[in-house]
Amino acid sequence: MRKLFVIGIGAGDPDQVTVRAVKAMRQVDVFFVIGKKGDGTQELVDVRAAILAEHATQPHTVVEIADPPRDRTVPGSGADAAYQGAVTDWHEARAELLERAFAETDGVGGILVWGDPSLYDSTLRIVERVLRRARIHFDYEVIPGITSVQALAAAHRMVLHEIGEPLHITTGRKLRDDGLAAGQSTLVMLDADCSFTHIPGDDIHIWWGAYLGMPDETIIEGPLRAVEHAITARRTELRQSKGWIMDIYLLRRGR
Amino acid sequence: MRKLFVIGIGAGDPDQVTVRAVKAMRQVDVFFVIGKKGDGTQELVDVRAAILAEHATQPHTVVEIADPPRDRTVPGSGADAAYQGAVTDWHEARAELLERAFAETDGVGGILVWGDPSLYDSTLRIVERVLRRARIHFDYEVIPGITSVQALAAAHRMVLHEIGEPLHITTGRKLRDDGLAAGQSTLVMLDADCSFTHIPGDDIHIWWGAYLGMPDETIIEGPLRAVEHAITARRTELRQSKGWIMDIYLLRRGR
Repeated sequence: MRKLFVIGIGAGDPDQVTVRAVKAMRQVDVFFVIGKKGDGTQELVDVRAAILAEHATQPHTVVEIADPPRDRTVPGSGADAAYQGAVTDWHEARAELLERAFAETDGVGGILVWGDPSLYDSTLRIVERVLRRARIHFDYEVIPGITSVQALAAAHRMVLHEIGEPLHITTGRKLRDDGLAAGQSTLVMLDADCSFTHIPGDDIHIWWGAYLGMPDETIIEGPLRAVEHAITARRTELRQSKGWIMDIYLLRRGR
Repeated sequence: MRKLFVIGIGAGDPDQVTVRAVKAMRQVDVFFVIGKKGDGTQELVDVRAAILAEHATQPHTVVEIADPPRDRTVPGSGADAAYQGAVTDWHEARAELLERAFAETDGVGGILVWGDPSLYDSTLRIVERVLRRARIHFDYEVIPGITSVQALAAAHRMVLHEIGEPLHITTGRKLRDDGLAAGQSTLVMLDADCSFTHIPGDDIHIWWGAYLGMPDETIIEGPLRAVEHAITARRTELRQSKGWIMDIYLLRRGR
Protein backbone atom coordinates (compact mmCIF):
# COMPACT_ATOMS: atom_id res chain seq x y z
CA MET A 1 0.00 0.00 0.00
CA ARG A 2 1.42 3.39 -1.01
CA LYS A 3 1.71 6.05 1.61
CA LEU A 4 1.01 9.78 1.76
CA PHE A 5 2.11 12.08 4.57
CA VAL A 6 0.14 15.26 5.23
CA ILE A 7 2.62 17.34 7.21
CA GLY A 8 1.89 20.50 9.17
CA ILE A 9 4.93 22.80 8.96
CA GLY A 10 3.96 25.66 11.27
CA ALA A 11 3.07 29.27 10.71
CA GLY A 12 6.16 30.39 8.78
CA ASP A 13 9.18 29.98 11.04
CA PRO A 14 11.21 27.05 9.61
CA ASP A 15 12.20 26.20 13.21
CA GLN A 16 8.52 25.66 14.03
CA VAL A 17 8.51 22.23 12.34
CA THR A 18 8.45 19.31 14.75
CA VAL A 19 10.99 16.51 14.93
CA ARG A 20 8.22 14.19 13.77
CA ALA A 21 7.58 16.38 10.71
CA VAL A 22 11.29 16.30 9.88
CA LYS A 23 11.33 12.49 10.13
CA ALA A 24 8.26 12.27 7.88
CA MET A 25 9.77 14.66 5.31
CA ARG A 26 12.81 12.37 5.13
CA GLN A 27 10.62 9.42 4.08
CA VAL A 28 8.97 11.25 1.19
CA ASP A 29 9.88 10.59 -2.45
CA VAL A 30 7.49 13.06 -4.07
CA PHE A 31 6.21 16.30 -2.55
CA PHE A 32 3.01 17.68 -4.06
CA VAL A 33 2.72 21.45 -3.94
CA ILE A 34 -0.77 22.70 -4.66
CA GLY A 35 -0.97 26.32 -5.72
CA LYS A 36 0.70 28.37 -8.39
CA LYS A 37 4.01 30.10 -8.04
CA GLY A 38 4.62 33.72 -8.76
CA ASP A 39 1.66 35.26 -6.99
CA GLY A 40 1.91 37.56 -3.98
CA THR A 41 2.89 34.71 -1.72
CA GLN A 42 6.28 34.02 -3.32
CA GLU A 43 7.74 34.57 0.14
CA LEU A 44 5.68 31.61 1.43
CA VAL A 45 6.88 29.49 -1.49
CA ASP A 46 10.44 30.43 -0.55
CA VAL A 47 9.91 29.48 3.12
CA ARG A 48 8.53 26.11 2.06
CA ALA A 49 11.48 25.57 -0.26
CA ALA A 50 13.87 26.47 2.57
CA ILE A 51 12.17 23.96 4.88
CA LEU A 52 12.52 21.23 2.26
CA ALA A 53 16.13 22.17 1.52
CA GLU A 54 17.00 21.98 5.21
CA HIS A 55 15.12 18.84 6.22
CA ALA A 56 14.34 16.69 3.17
CA THR A 57 17.92 15.53 2.77
CA GLN A 58 17.05 12.38 0.80
CA PRO A 59 16.57 12.37 -2.99
CA HIS A 60 13.07 13.61 -3.75
CA THR A 61 11.08 15.39 -6.41
CA VAL A 62 8.65 18.28 -6.09
CA VAL A 63 5.54 18.19 -8.28
CA GLU A 64 3.68 21.48 -8.61
CA ILE A 65 -0.06 21.23 -9.05
CA ALA A 66 -1.67 24.34 -10.54
CA ASP A 67 -4.47 25.61 -8.33
CA PRO A 68 -7.84 25.26 -10.12
CA PRO A 69 -9.90 28.45 -10.15
CA ARG A 70 -12.45 28.79 -7.33
CA ASP A 71 -15.78 30.53 -7.80
CA ARG A 72 -15.43 33.40 -5.33
CA THR A 73 -18.43 35.26 -6.72
CA VAL A 74 -20.85 33.19 -4.61
CA PRO A 75 -22.08 35.43 -1.80
CA GLY A 76 -23.37 34.37 1.58
CA SER A 77 -21.97 33.00 4.80
CA GLY A 78 -19.91 29.89 5.42
CA ALA A 79 -22.95 27.86 6.43
CA ASP A 80 -24.82 28.63 3.19
CA ALA A 81 -25.36 25.79 0.75
CA ALA A 82 -24.26 27.95 -2.22
CA TYR A 83 -20.99 28.87 -0.54
CA GLN A 84 -20.29 25.33 0.57
CA GLY A 85 -21.14 24.10 -2.92
CA ALA A 86 -18.59 26.45 -4.50
CA VAL A 87 -15.98 25.24 -2.04
CA THR A 88 -16.72 21.55 -2.58
CA ASP A 89 -16.58 21.96 -6.39
CA TRP A 90 -13.14 23.45 -5.92
CA HIS A 91 -12.13 20.58 -3.62
CA GLU A 92 -13.23 18.09 -6.28
CA ALA A 93 -11.14 19.84 -8.94
CA ARG A 94 -8.14 19.78 -6.63
CA ALA A 95 -8.76 16.10 -5.83
CA GLU A 96 -8.67 15.22 -9.55
CA LEU A 97 -5.35 17.03 -9.97
CA LEU A 98 -3.80 15.40 -6.89
CA GLU A 99 -5.06 11.97 -8.00
CA ARG A 100 -3.49 12.38 -11.43
CA ALA A 101 -0.18 13.59 -10.02
CA PHE A 102 0.01 10.80 -7.42
CA ALA A 103 -0.91 8.17 -10.05
CA GLU A 104 1.88 9.38 -12.33
CA THR A 105 4.61 8.97 -9.73
CA ASP A 106 6.01 6.20 -7.56
CA GLY A 107 6.95 6.03 -3.93
CA VAL A 108 5.88 7.82 -0.78
CA GLY A 109 3.98 11.08 -1.25
CA GLY A 110 4.05 14.15 0.92
CA ILE A 111 2.05 17.35 1.16
CA LEU A 112 3.29 20.24 3.29
CA VAL A 113 0.53 22.25 4.93
CA TRP A 114 0.90 25.70 6.52
CA GLY A 115 0.02 25.58 10.20
CA ASP A 116 -1.87 22.38 11.01
CA PRO A 117 -3.97 20.31 8.59
CA SER A 118 -6.84 20.26 11.13
CA LEU A 119 -7.64 23.99 11.11
CA TYR A 120 -9.05 25.95 8.15
CA ASP A 121 -7.15 23.93 5.61
CA SER A 122 -8.65 21.89 2.78
CA THR A 123 -5.88 19.32 2.23
CA LEU A 124 -7.47 16.52 4.29
CA ARG A 125 -10.87 17.04 2.64
CA ILE A 126 -9.16 16.75 -0.75
CA VAL A 127 -7.22 13.62 0.26
CA GLU A 128 -10.47 12.01 1.48
CA ARG A 129 -12.07 12.83 -1.88
CA VAL A 130 -9.21 11.17 -3.76
CA LEU A 131 -9.72 8.04 -1.64
CA ARG A 132 -13.51 8.06 -2.16
CA ARG A 133 -13.01 8.30 -5.94
CA ALA A 134 -11.20 4.95 -5.48
CA ARG A 135 -9.09 5.20 -8.63
CA ILE A 136 -5.87 5.09 -6.65
CA HIS A 137 -5.32 3.49 -3.26
CA PHE A 138 -3.03 4.59 -0.47
CA ASP A 139 -2.76 5.00 3.28
CA TYR A 140 -2.12 8.43 4.75
CA GLU A 141 -0.82 9.84 8.00
CA VAL A 142 -1.31 13.30 9.47
CA ILE A 143 1.55 15.10 11.26
CA PRO A 144 0.36 18.06 13.36
CA GLY A 145 2.00 21.47 13.04
CA ILE A 146 2.04 24.72 15.01
CA THR A 147 -0.86 26.97 13.93
CA SER A 148 -0.91 30.75 13.57
CA VAL A 149 -3.30 30.66 16.56
CA GLN A 150 -0.47 29.39 18.72
CA ALA A 151 2.04 31.74 17.11
CA LEU A 152 -0.27 34.66 17.97
CA ALA A 153 -0.50 33.54 21.59
CA ALA A 154 3.28 33.06 21.83
CA ALA A 155 3.98 36.47 20.29
CA HIS A 156 1.66 38.12 22.84
CA ARG A 157 2.89 35.72 25.56
CA MET A 158 -0.71 35.08 26.56
CA VAL A 159 -3.17 32.34 27.38
CA LEU A 160 -5.90 32.42 24.73
CA HIS A 161 -8.82 32.31 27.18
CA GLU A 162 -9.74 33.36 30.71
CA ILE A 163 -9.52 30.75 33.49
CA GLY A 164 -11.96 27.92 32.80
CA GLU A 165 -13.63 29.79 29.93
CA PRO A 166 -14.01 28.74 26.28
CA LEU A 167 -11.99 29.67 23.22
CA HIS A 168 -14.09 30.18 20.10
CA ILE A 169 -12.24 29.98 16.77
CA THR A 170 -14.16 31.43 13.86
CA THR A 171 -13.87 33.30 10.55
CA GLY A 172 -14.27 37.00 9.75
CA ARG A 173 -17.43 36.10 7.83
CA LYS A 174 -19.00 34.33 10.82
CA LEU A 175 -17.91 37.07 13.23
CA ARG A 176 -19.86 39.62 11.19
CA ASP A 177 -22.87 37.26 11.03
CA ASP A 178 -22.87 36.09 14.64
CA GLY A 179 -21.43 39.04 16.56
CA LEU A 180 -19.10 38.73 19.51
CA ALA A 181 -20.32 36.69 22.49
CA ALA A 182 -19.36 37.51 26.07
CA GLY A 183 -17.91 34.89 28.42
CA GLN A 184 -15.47 33.52 25.89
CA SER A 185 -12.45 34.59 23.88
CA THR A 186 -12.91 34.69 20.09
CA LEU A 187 -10.08 33.99 17.69
CA VAL A 188 -10.74 35.19 14.14
CA MET A 189 -9.07 33.68 11.07
CA LEU A 190 -9.52 34.15 7.31
CA ASP A 191 -10.57 37.77 7.69
CA ALA A 192 -9.54 39.96 4.77
CA ASP A 193 -11.98 42.70 5.79
CA CYS A 194 -10.96 43.83 9.29
CA SER A 195 -14.32 42.60 10.56
CA PHE A 196 -13.43 43.76 14.08
CA THR A 197 -14.28 47.30 12.94
CA HIS A 198 -17.91 46.15 12.52
CA ILE A 199 -18.26 44.85 16.09
CA PRO A 200 -19.85 47.40 18.44
CA GLY A 201 -18.88 47.78 22.08
CA ASP A 202 -16.52 49.74 24.32
CA ASP A 203 -15.54 46.74 26.45
CA ILE A 204 -13.59 44.76 23.83
CA HIS A 205 -9.85 44.04 23.88
CA ILE A 206 -7.94 42.92 20.77
CA TRP A 207 -4.66 41.06 20.31
CA TRP A 208 -3.69 41.25 16.61
CA GLY A 209 -0.78 39.75 14.71
CA ALA A 210 0.43 39.55 11.10
CA TYR A 211 3.14 37.40 9.44
CA LEU A 212 3.30 35.40 12.66
CA GLY A 213 6.46 33.36 13.02
CA MET A 214 8.08 35.18 10.09
CA PRO A 215 10.74 37.91 10.07
CA ASP A 216 8.11 40.63 9.55
CA GLU A 217 5.98 39.49 12.49
CA THR A 218 3.99 42.49 13.72
CA ILE A 219 1.68 42.61 16.73
CA ILE A 220 -0.64 45.23 18.20
CA GLU A 221 -2.71 44.88 21.37
CA GLY A 222 -5.09 47.13 23.27
CA PRO A 223 -8.69 48.20 23.80
CA LEU A 224 -10.36 47.65 20.41
CA ARG A 225 -11.79 51.16 20.04
CA ALA A 226 -8.42 52.70 20.94
CA VAL A 227 -6.27 50.64 18.55
CA GLU A 228 -8.54 49.58 15.66
CA HIS A 229 -7.46 52.48 13.44
CA ALA A 230 -3.81 51.80 14.16
CA ILE A 231 -4.35 48.16 13.14
CA THR A 232 -6.22 48.90 9.90
CA ALA A 233 -3.64 51.55 8.93
CA ARG A 234 -0.69 49.28 9.72
CA ARG A 235 -2.37 46.40 7.89
CA THR A 236 -2.87 48.49 4.73
CA GLU A 237 0.70 49.75 4.86
CA LEU A 238 2.16 46.25 5.32
CA ARG A 239 0.02 44.72 2.59
CA GLN A 240 1.03 47.44 0.15
CA SER A 241 4.74 47.19 0.88
CA LYS A 242 4.90 43.37 0.83
CA GLY A 243 2.14 42.64 -1.68
CA TRP A 244 0.31 40.22 0.63
CA ILE A 245 -0.69 39.82 4.26
CA MET A 246 -1.78 37.06 6.58
CA ASP A 247 -3.15 38.14 9.95
CA ILE A 248 -5.36 36.87 12.76
CA TYR A 249 -6.62 38.30 16.02
CA LEU A 250 -8.24 37.49 19.34
CA LEU A 251 -11.17 39.47 20.75
CA ARG A 252 -12.46 39.40 24.32
CA ARG A 253 -15.23 41.38 25.98
CA GLY A 254 -15.24 42.81 29.48
CA ARG A 255 -11.58 43.37 30.17
CA MET B 1 18.43 40.81 32.22
CA ARG B 2 17.89 37.13 33.08
CA LYS B 3 15.81 35.04 30.73
CA LEU B 4 13.13 32.40 31.13
CA PHE B 5 11.84 30.15 28.35
CA VAL B 6 8.32 28.72 28.60
CA ILE B 7 8.49 25.81 26.18
CA GLY B 8 5.55 23.83 24.82
CA ILE B 9 6.65 20.21 24.34
CA GLY B 10 3.62 18.63 22.69
CA ALA B 11 1.05 16.11 23.83
CA GLY B 12 3.36 13.27 24.85
CA ASP B 13 5.26 12.13 21.77
CA PRO B 14 8.90 13.25 22.26
CA ASP B 15 9.08 13.72 18.47
CA GLN B 16 6.31 16.32 18.74
CA VAL B 17 8.75 18.97 20.01
CA THR B 18 9.65 21.62 17.47
CA VAL B 19 13.14 22.51 16.28
CA ARG B 20 12.66 25.86 17.99
CA ALA B 21 11.83 24.13 21.29
CA VAL B 22 14.97 22.02 20.97
CA LYS B 23 17.08 25.15 20.36
CA ALA B 24 15.50 26.84 23.41
CA MET B 25 16.07 23.78 25.63
CA ARG B 26 19.76 23.93 24.69
CA GLN B 27 20.05 27.48 26.05
CA VAL B 28 18.61 26.63 29.47
CA ASP B 29 20.74 26.31 32.60
CA VAL B 30 17.97 25.46 35.07
CA PHE B 31 14.71 23.69 34.30
CA PHE B 32 11.90 24.22 36.80
CA VAL B 33 9.51 21.30 37.12
CA ILE B 34 6.33 22.17 38.95
CA GLY B 35 4.43 19.20 40.33
CA LYS B 36 5.32 16.33 42.60
CA LYS B 37 6.82 13.09 41.47
CA GLY B 38 5.43 9.70 42.31
CA ASP B 39 1.76 10.26 41.60
CA GLY B 40 -0.22 8.55 38.86
CA THR B 41 1.49 10.57 36.17
CA GLN B 42 4.96 9.06 36.65
CA GLU B 43 4.75 8.13 32.98
CA LEU B 44 4.47 11.83 32.09
CA VAL B 45 7.44 12.63 34.32
CA ASP B 46 9.38 9.94 32.45
CA VAL B 47 8.44 11.35 29.04
CA ARG B 48 9.57 14.81 30.14
CA ALA B 49 12.84 13.36 31.44
CA ALA B 50 13.35 11.54 28.13
CA ILE B 51 12.78 14.77 26.18
CA LEU B 52 15.36 16.57 28.34
CA ALA B 53 17.82 13.67 28.06
CA GLU B 54 17.52 13.70 24.28
CA HIS B 55 17.54 17.42 23.56
CA ALA B 56 19.06 19.34 26.51
CA THR B 57 22.59 18.21 25.72
CA GLN B 58 24.29 21.11 27.54
CA PRO B 59 25.05 21.00 31.29
CA HIS B 60 21.87 21.89 33.18
CA THR B 61 20.12 21.30 36.47
CA VAL B 62 16.51 20.35 37.13
CA VAL B 63 14.81 21.94 40.12
CA GLU B 64 11.61 20.29 41.28
CA ILE B 65 9.00 22.55 42.79
CA ALA B 66 6.43 20.75 44.96
CA ASP B 67 2.91 21.51 43.82
CA PRO B 68 1.02 23.53 46.43
CA PRO B 69 -2.36 22.07 47.37
CA ARG B 70 -5.36 23.50 45.48
CA ASP B 71 -8.78 23.89 47.03
CA ARG B 72 -10.84 21.57 44.83
CA THR B 73 -13.83 21.62 47.21
CA VAL B 74 -15.12 24.88 45.72
CA PRO B 75 -18.17 24.01 43.62
CA GLY B 76 -19.56 25.94 40.67
CA SER B 77 -18.65 26.60 37.10
CA GLY B 78 -15.48 28.04 35.66
CA ALA B 79 -16.95 31.52 35.43
CA ASP B 80 -17.89 31.62 39.13
CA ALA B 81 -15.96 34.02 41.33
CA ALA B 82 -15.47 31.34 44.01
CA TYR B 83 -13.95 28.91 41.53
CA GLN B 84 -11.74 31.54 39.96
CA GLY B 85 -10.70 32.69 43.43
CA ALA B 86 -9.57 29.17 44.37
CA VAL B 87 -7.60 28.93 41.15
CA THR B 88 -5.93 32.33 41.56
CA ASP B 89 -4.95 31.52 45.20
CA TRP B 90 -3.27 28.42 43.84
CA HIS B 91 -1.53 30.43 41.11
CA GLU B 92 -0.19 32.83 43.75
CA ALA B 93 1.19 29.94 45.81
CA ARG B 94 2.88 28.54 42.71
CA ALA B 95 4.25 31.98 41.81
CA GLU B 96 5.89 32.29 45.25
CA LEU B 97 7.55 28.90 44.82
CA LEU B 98 8.78 29.68 41.30
CA GLU B 99 10.06 33.08 42.42
CA ARG B 100 12.04 31.52 45.25
CA ALA B 101 13.50 28.78 43.03
CA PHE B 102 14.47 31.24 40.26
CA ALA B 103 16.02 33.63 42.80
CA GLU B 104 18.15 30.84 44.27
CA THR B 105 19.74 29.88 40.95
CA ASP B 106 21.75 31.57 38.23
CA GLY B 107 21.50 31.53 34.47
CA VAL B 108 18.74 30.99 31.94
CA GLY B 109 15.57 29.34 33.25
CA GLY B 110 13.24 26.99 31.43
CA ILE B 111 9.80 25.53 32.10
CA LEU B 112 8.52 22.68 29.96
CA VAL B 113 4.77 22.76 29.40
CA TRP B 114 2.63 19.88 28.10
CA GLY B 115 0.95 20.83 24.87
CA ASP B 116 1.06 24.59 24.35
CA PRO B 117 1.32 27.25 27.08
CA SER B 118 -1.60 29.14 25.50
CA LEU B 119 -4.32 26.54 26.11
CA TYR B 120 -5.66 25.44 29.52
CA ASP B 121 -2.30 25.79 31.19
CA SER B 122 -1.45 28.03 34.13
CA THR B 123 2.28 28.52 33.59
CA LEU B 124 2.04 31.90 31.84
CA ARG B 125 -0.39 33.23 34.47
CA ILE B 126 2.09 32.19 37.16
CA VAL B 127 5.07 33.74 35.34
CA GLU B 128 3.11 37.02 34.99
CA ARG B 129 2.39 36.90 38.74
CA VAL B 130 6.08 36.48 39.52
CA LEU B 131 6.84 39.55 37.38
CA ARG B 132 4.06 41.60 39.01
CA ARG B 133 5.44 40.76 42.47
CA ALA B 134 8.59 42.54 41.20
CA ARG B 135 10.98 40.85 43.60
CA ILE B 136 12.95 39.30 40.74
CA HIS B 137 13.30 40.64 37.22
CA PHE B 138 13.61 38.71 33.97
CA ASP B 139 12.49 38.59 30.37
CA TYR B 140 10.61 35.57 29.09
CA GLU B 141 9.87 33.97 25.74
CA VAL B 142 7.09 31.55 24.80
CA ILE B 143 7.75 28.64 22.42
CA PRO B 144 4.54 27.09 21.06
CA GLY B 145 3.96 23.34 21.20
CA ILE B 146 1.55 20.85 19.62
CA THR B 147 -1.62 20.55 21.70
CA SER B 148 -3.70 17.45 22.42
CA VAL B 149 -6.37 19.14 20.27
CA GLN B 150 -4.10 18.80 17.26
CA ALA B 151 -3.03 15.30 18.27
CA LEU B 152 -6.71 14.29 18.41
CA ALA B 153 -7.31 15.67 14.93
CA ALA B 154 -4.21 13.96 13.55
CA ALA B 155 -5.15 10.61 15.13
CA HIS B 156 -8.62 10.82 13.55
CA ARG B 157 -7.12 12.36 10.37
CA MET B 158 -9.81 15.02 10.43
CA VAL B 159 -10.40 18.73 10.11
CA LEU B 160 -11.78 19.94 13.44
CA HIS B 161 -14.69 21.92 11.95
CA GLU B 162 -17.01 21.89 8.96
CA ILE B 163 -16.18 24.16 6.00
CA GLY B 164 -16.27 27.81 7.11
CA GLU B 165 -17.76 26.96 10.52
CA PRO B 166 -16.39 27.69 13.99
CA LEU B 167 -14.47 25.49 16.39
CA HIS B 168 -15.44 25.98 20.03
CA ILE B 169 -12.92 24.78 22.64
CA THR B 170 -14.36 24.40 26.11
CA THR B 171 -14.24 22.40 29.35
CA GLY B 172 -16.41 19.53 30.57
CA ARG B 173 -17.76 21.85 33.24
CA LYS B 174 -18.84 24.47 30.69
CA LEU B 175 -20.27 21.85 28.33
CA ARG B 176 -22.61 20.66 31.10
CA ASP B 177 -23.56 24.28 31.92
CA ASP B 178 -23.96 25.60 28.37
CA GLY B 179 -25.08 22.53 26.39
CA LEU B 180 -23.98 21.76 22.85
CA ALA B 181 -24.64 24.39 20.20
CA ALA B 182 -25.42 23.53 16.58
CA GLY B 183 -23.50 25.08 13.67
CA GLN B 184 -20.10 24.59 15.24
CA SER B 185 -17.79 21.80 16.37
CA THR B 186 -17.10 21.62 20.11
CA LEU B 187 -13.81 20.36 21.50
CA VAL B 188 -13.96 19.41 25.18
CA MET B 189 -10.91 19.40 27.46
CA LEU B 190 -10.42 18.94 31.22
CA ASP B 191 -13.40 16.61 31.51
CA ALA B 192 -12.98 13.94 34.18
CA ASP B 193 -16.70 13.18 34.19
CA CYS B 194 -17.59 12.01 30.66
CA SER B 195 -19.85 15.05 30.32
CA PHE B 196 -20.84 13.92 26.83
CA THR B 197 -23.17 11.39 28.49
CA HIS B 198 -25.19 14.34 29.85
CA ILE B 199 -25.78 15.95 26.44
CA PRO B 200 -29.14 14.97 24.91
CA GLY B 201 -29.68 14.45 21.19
CA ASP B 202 -29.63 11.74 18.55
CA ASP B 203 -27.79 13.84 15.97
CA ILE B 204 -24.41 14.11 17.69
CA HIS B 205 -21.14 12.59 16.48
CA ILE B 206 -18.13 12.12 18.77
CA TRP B 207 -14.41 11.77 18.08
CA TRP B 208 -12.68 10.70 21.31
CA GLY B 209 -9.03 10.09 22.14
CA ALA B 210 -6.92 9.23 25.20
CA TYR B 211 -3.13 9.31 25.78
CA LEU B 212 -2.83 11.19 22.48
CA GLY B 213 0.65 11.08 21.01
CA MET B 214 1.73 8.40 23.50
CA PRO B 215 2.25 4.66 22.99
CA ASP B 216 -1.16 3.86 24.51
CA GLU B 217 -3.02 6.29 22.24
CA THR B 218 -6.62 5.07 21.95
CA ILE B 219 -9.35 6.57 19.77
CA ILE B 220 -13.06 5.85 19.30
CA GLU B 221 -15.38 7.63 16.86
CA GLY B 222 -19.03 7.30 15.97
CA PRO B 223 -22.58 8.53 16.60
CA LEU B 224 -22.55 9.60 20.27
CA ARG B 225 -25.53 7.52 21.37
CA ALA B 226 -24.06 4.42 19.67
CA VAL B 227 -20.54 4.66 21.11
CA GLU B 228 -20.83 6.54 24.43
CA HIS B 229 -21.00 3.34 26.49
CA ALA B 230 -18.00 1.91 24.67
CA ILE B 231 -16.07 5.10 25.46
CA THR B 232 -16.98 5.23 29.16
CA ALA B 233 -16.21 1.51 29.57
CA ARG B 234 -12.88 1.78 27.75
CA ARG B 235 -12.00 4.92 29.70
CA THR B 236 -12.65 3.19 33.06
CA GLU B 237 -10.64 0.14 32.00
CA LEU B 238 -7.68 2.23 30.80
CA ARG B 239 -7.66 4.42 33.89
CA GLN B 240 -7.69 1.40 36.16
CA SER B 241 -4.94 -0.44 34.34
CA LYS B 242 -2.63 2.61 34.00
CA GLY B 243 -3.59 4.52 37.14
CA TRP B 244 -4.32 7.75 35.25
CA ILE B 245 -5.94 8.99 32.06
CA MET B 246 -5.88 12.11 29.91
CA ASP B 247 -8.53 12.31 27.22
CA ILE B 248 -10.35 14.87 25.09
CA TYR B 249 -13.09 14.73 22.48
CA LEU B 250 -14.86 16.61 19.72
CA LEU B 251 -18.66 16.78 19.43
CA ARG B 252 -20.67 17.91 16.41
CA ARG B 253 -24.42 18.02 15.83
CA GLY B 254 -26.22 17.15 12.62
CA ARG B 255 -23.91 14.74 10.92
